[in-house]
Amino acid sequence: MKKLKLGMVGGGQGAFIGGVHRIAARLDGKWDLVAGALSSNSQRAALSAAELGIAPDRSYVSYHEMAKAEAARADGIDAVAIVTPNHLHADPAIAFLNAGIHVICDKPLAATQDQALAIKAAADASSAKFILTHNYTGYPLIRQAREMVARGDLGKIRVIQAEYAQDWLTEVTHNKQADWRTDPKQSGAGAIGDIGTHAFNILSFVSGLHTEALSAELHTFVDGRQVDDNAHIMLRFSGGARGMLWASQVAVGRENGLTLRIYGDKGGIEWCQEDPNKMIFTPFGAPSQILTRGGSGLGDGNDRWTRIPPGHPEGYLEGFGNIYNDAADYITASNDGALLPGIEEALEGMWFIAACLESSEHDTKWITNPIHS
Amino acid sequence: MKKLKLGMVGGGQGAFIGGVHRIAARLDGKWDLVAGALSSNSQRAALSAAELGIAPDRSYVSYHEMAKAEAARADGIDAVAIVTPNHLHADPAIAFLNAGIHVICDKPLAATQDQALAIKAAADASSAKFILTHNYTGYPLIRQAREMVARGDLGKIRVIQAEYAQDWLTEVTHNKQADWRTDPKQSGAGAIGDIGTHAFNILSFVSGLHTEALSAELHTFVDGRQVDDNAHIMLRFSGGARGMLWASQVAVGRENGLTLRIYGDKGGIEWCQEDPNKMIFTPFGAPSQILTRGGSGLGDGNDRWTRIPPGHPEGYLEGFGNIYNDAADYITASNDGALLPGIEEALEGMWFIAACLESSEHDTKWITNPIHS
Amino acid sequence: MKKLKLGMVGGGQGAFIGGVHRIAARLDGKWDLVAGALSSNSQRAALSAAELGIAPDRSYVSYHEMAKAEAARADGIDAVAIVTPNHLHADPAIAFLNAGIHVICDKPLAATQDQALAIKAAADASSAKFILTHNYTGYPLIRQAREMVARGDLGKIRVIQAEYAQDWLTEVTHNKQADWRTDPKQSGAGAIGDIGTHAFNILSFVSGLHTEALSAELHTFVDGRQVDDNAHIMLRFSGGARGMLWASQVAVGRENGLTLRIYGDKGGIEWCQEDPNKMIFTPFGAPSQILTRGGSGLGDGNDRWTRIPPGHPEGYLEGFGNIYNDAADYITASNDGALLPGIEEALEGMWFIAACLESSEHDTKWITNPIHS
Amino acid sequence: MKKLKLGMVGGGQGAFIGGVHRIAARLDGKWDLVAGALSSNSQRAALSAAELGIAPDRSYVSYHEMAKAEAARADGIDAVAIVTPNHLHADPAIAFLNAGIHVICDKPLAATQDQALAIKAAADASSAKFILTHNYTGYPLIRQAREMVARGDLGKIRVIQAEYAQDWLTEVTHNKQADWRTDPKQSGAGAIGDIGTHAFNILSFVSGLHTEALSAELHTFVDGRQVDDNAHIMLRFSGGARGMLWASQVAVGRENGLTLRIYGDKGGIEWCQEDPNKMIFTPFGAPSQILTRGGSGLGDGNDRWTRIPPGHPEGYLEGFGNIYNDAADYITASNDGALLPGIEEALEGMWFIAACLESSEHDTKWITNPIHS
Repeated sequence: MKKLKLGMVGGGQGAFIGGVHRIAARLDGKWDLVAGALSSNSQRAALSAAELGIAPDRSYVSYHEMAKAEAARADGIDAVAIVTPNHLHADPAIAFLNAGIHVICDKPLAATQDQALAIKAAADASSAKFILTHNYTGYPLIRQAREMVARGDLGKIRVIQAEYAQDWLTEVTHNKQADWRTDPKQSGAGAIGDIGTHAFNILSFVSGLHTEALSAELHTFVDGRQVDDNAHIMLRFSGGARGMLWASQVAVGRENGLTLRIYGDKGGIEWCQEDPNKMIFTPFGAPSQILTRGGSGLGDGNDRWTRIPPGHPEGYLEGFGNIYNDAADYITASNDGALLPGIEEALEGMWFIAACLESSEHDTKWITNPIHS
Repeated sequence: MKKLKLGMVGGGQGAFIGGVHRIAARLDGKWDLVAGALSSNSQRAALSAAELGIAPDRSYVSYHEMAKAEAARADGIDAVAIVTPNHLHADPAIAFLNAGIHVICDKPLAATQDQALAIKAAADASSAKFILTHNYTGYPLIRQAREMVARGDLGKIRVIQAEYAQDWLTEVTHNKQADWRTDPKQSGAGAIGDIGTHAFNILSFVSGLHTEALSAELHTFVDGRQVDDNAHIMLRFSGGARGMLWASQVAVGRENGLTLRIYGDKGGIEWCQEDPNKMIFTPFGAPSQILTRGGSGLGDGNDRWTRIPPGHPEGYLEGFGNIYNDAADYITASNDGALLPGIEEALEGMWFIAACLESSEHDTKWITNPIHS
Repeated sequence: MKKLKLGMVGGGQGAFIGGVHRIAARLDGKWDLVAGALSSNSQRAALSAAELGIAPDRSYVSYHEMAKAEAARADGIDAVAIVTPNHLHADPAIAFLNAGIHVICDKPLAATQDQALAIKAAADASSAKFILTHNYTGYPLIRQAREMVARGDLGKIRVIQAEYAQDWLTEVTHNKQADWRTDPKQSGAGAIGDIGTHAFNILSFVSGLHTEALSAELHTFVDGRQVDDNAHIMLRFSGGARGMLWASQVAVGRENGLTLRIYGDKGGIEWCQEDPNKMIFTPFGAPSQILTRGGSGLGDGNDRWTRIPPGHPEGYLEGFGNIYNDAADYITASNDGALLPGIEEALEGMWFIAACLESSEHDTKWITNPIHS
Repeated sequence: MKKLKLGMVGGGQGAFIGGVHRIAARLDGKWDLVAGALSSNSQRAALSAAELGIAPDRSYVSYHEMAKAEAARADGIDAVAIVTPNHLHADPAIAFLNAGIHVICDKPLAATQDQALAIKAAADASSAKFILTHNYTGYPLIRQAREMVARGDLGKIRVIQAEYAQDWLTEVTHNKQADWRTDPKQSGAGAIGDIGTHAFNILSFVSGLHTEALSAELHTFVDGRQVDDNAHIMLRFSGGARGMLWASQVAVGRENGLTLRIYGDKGGIEWCQEDPNKMIFTPFGAPSQILTRGGSGLGDGNDRWTRIPPGHPEGYLEGFGNIYNDAADYITASNDGALLPGIEEALEGMWFIAACLESSEHDTKWITNPIHS
């Protein structure tokens, strides 16, 4: 098996999510990191590249230069991972898409709708693929849940309860991660963009339902913070289902509490990211079942997307790795990319953010979703 | 210790909540059930009374007659438990209050606001006490939580997430319990009245916060049902806290999922009724703690309201029993009744129901709470 | 329904288990406590009786006198509850059995084998019934488990893991409860008698297996303590199954951790007393199921032994209440007593204690069970 | 950072643990797999090597040849991973140790004591390091637990309860994994060797206690199986602590249930491998705490051995990766290897297996540990 070649924009020393992308890419041995524009600071870029074993001539300061140079090389990168703050997604994404290089971009898509649409235009015009790392869709049981909904195990969906609660921004916090996330120019939004979009993405991914409208109450509890740190959202779905979504970064005691619960007229499922190797499934009128990753009773192929037997827990990195794994297969045409979040899901996320902001500014007015409805 | 004498209105053969009240009253040996108007059907009333050891001359068909007769007896009842469907609370409650007999009434207060105000008027005019059995306030850890909030363990409250999810009305269901609860004339409302009011009551009881306004989306998922079976509600509290409340009777897999989570700027608590002997408390920046009923670290008096040591689970009936226990002590002036839900809490619940209905009829319009604000 | 009349020996002010017996007897309204020899201290006996509403002429200082007097009364007690320390079970039990009064005795049966055999002889000679309150057999899911084993849901039983861990004797402790339990003259043994016998009883009750032999290592960790506070035991069962039992009163963090796990060649079950309303059942090769008290999928009659719907937790007192409930029905011939622990189970418990002591004194020598094998 | 070069013996197509070692080695980017004798079947060896990107000239059929050739190359491997069945550990291990190449060997050390001692002799005679992959010691919270015990958070250790329960061998099973594990010639033992040694290793690792003696009851429940599939073991530790260990591969419902509970006179801890990101710690007399990997309250350096923030679960592969990570650092002298299981721990495991077999053959006779006592 020939490995694919990966480049990276952002993710230099001190960054967080870049390191996660690198582990995810490494995990299954399908990618080699060979190029990078790891930092806008030339010294940090060089040091970071050296640490990662990237050859000096493939460590760039400018991602524009990188896109051009790598596209020109016979051994140029197959794909680039963009792991910069949100407001710095569009410019490199467009550069690489224009250069015909596949893009794996961190979420949310951008800090503004204009940036998002520019990426969309570039993606449409390019032969290269665009993948957004809504990594939680990589969890095997989330994919299992999607299949169960699709084949009718839950019947007609009625109620969706999603939440993503953390507590790390309970107080005024200053560090590299907190700073850009709480600067509206860099992030575009607070909790709704950073984590709310994940919750919105997986509820859509699993339920297959289109969100027709939402009503949101955003709030900022920490004095001086310029973005929301708590969001309460009501959702109306196509087909009549109803939902709630709570995103918070001030919920003391919650580390990374992404939870999804879906109830239909025949069954219900409940899944929590902090304990991702199990999911509760209740067929109405029968005992609840504990479904486990790769475990008994999931049907054929229940060990897809897993590496090790049930009871040997896989976690966040393995789920993230499934995105990179699938991306490699998608690029090499070994799968059809149907499970990978792409530009449509990315724009849905941008609508979610914008709609939440608009609704909250207008006393929780219902905002309809123009993309589909 | 002399036992108090209890009468009961409703709760004949085939009823549910009447039996619960009787066990709750029996549990600690402070009450004797000696009189009843257990059914409007005279034969069932007599049979039910006989089964319960009520003397024939104190088994009444008419609660009006019962109120009069018991008030006239030297050994008349001290209090009456009213355990009829909601629309039949007001008439007996007023009769007994007018007769100077203490009233312990099941929740919600009534099926209509008019009925509620009539009870309020009677309660104000009577020397007798009025207690509403929001029984979940009787759980020791709910009372512990209230104390922790009051003494500042959580700091300033920011976010409240309450939910009460069941699945027993997932399909069209016909039995004595389901029938009156889904008949708007008898119940006044569906999930919001039957269980939503409990969630609203305990979040108010624990947080001590006044709800200034709410926005609600009620929904009926089961064809032909005339009342709501799912409710999504946003809440705004005095002091700036925000909350969500979800009540559902179609959440497949949930038996009696009353859950309360409260987050302040210094700590958070989480408690689930189905596992009521523990509560998670997280002081910000420290490990989460598992507080147990009567267990270590709760401070002096942590075994108030419990009968047996930690690790020996108490449940729903014991929590309900605490209401009857406290009611006996309140009537005999052994406590001040501060923990017992009374007419004010009952009217808050009626506002909650009415506001949910009005908001939902007007596309989730925010409804302000006129009682206090 | 006419209530049965109960007397009590022991259980005066300051006692623990007597109060539990009283609540258990009260819970379902089948018993009235009308007589007692509550304390050997005459003043405490009188005060305790008055508190409990026992008429002065039926408050006795001597249980011998009480047995005689109550047997002579037309309205004499139907049964007596014996809730004294272990060494004081035999004398009153024999007195009441000889008087033809049914005996409900706390466990273990006695402090010595001689006392135990004397009770056995009296029980055999009497028309009165003898019931031992191994109360944990009263939990509905424990009875469900017993039925599941009996009907083959687990297949042939292979492995039984039982444990009962507490931490309240982690340090030298002095109070009424600790004092007699750690005095070998009063208790006969430490952890193995106080809690180990419960674990042994429910594993026998559920599995239906006869214990052929055991090997035990008892240990006393607290300096100066005269009885065991930790016990490790291996078990060999009829039919070839193997088991382990751990009993400890020094397991820091465990409040009342009675746990039973049974594995057969077709399925396994796991149940913990601290969360008694659910049990995990795994049919081999299928997902684990969460069975709930009175919940879905348990088969006909799954709400026997419960008072309230699933999701409304019942606990220790309700389980204990089932013993009193069944005892009343047994006495009135409404059931056959098959689920009630009697003299045979009581003697099995005495063998268990004696065998543990003998094995441990002889370096964990295997001790065979002479009663059946 | 220059990567270390890894070779592998075993782990060709169809193998399980070899793939795990490769992921573990890849995870943190410190190793490159460059050579292998992946199968004794030359065709499978070549195909497997090609799949893994190993150059044809470094794919060997004979590990003897591989050891010689790699030792002779300027760019020869730094270490070899030995992932063959147990009876094939000694021969390659000795070959590589003799060649001066570091050895990372799967557990248990060998199938026989003779093989084990031969490895020991080779390791003593070699400058190369020997590491045994008792991978569960790589879990961050297991290392945290070790530190907590060492600094006295639990006080003097009294009781250790360890268990490792699976159900995958509940029935006669035939596949590559099951076949060699149930063949005594290849495995040396059944459940005690395959999983019991893990449980024994982590209880020793965390407690720091020396096992002075053990008494074991091994059993084979599946007809025709030639090795044990269930083991009950009592343990006596230096300093007076007592323990139990249960290992089973027929515990229906248990996927990979490695659990460790340790109780001292000041505190207790409980940890389960299936939910490895949390550990319960109870200081006596205070509420239990939920410690989380990298979470609050663990003290300085609590994020050692973790890659991502608390709440983002790490699992089995990350724990295994910590062994490879530490091994790289140990080889490059960046750490002292103190946390890595080496030849001493390997021999302890062999004693454990032999002692269990001997004890069980002699009716659970106590076997003392000659290595230290």
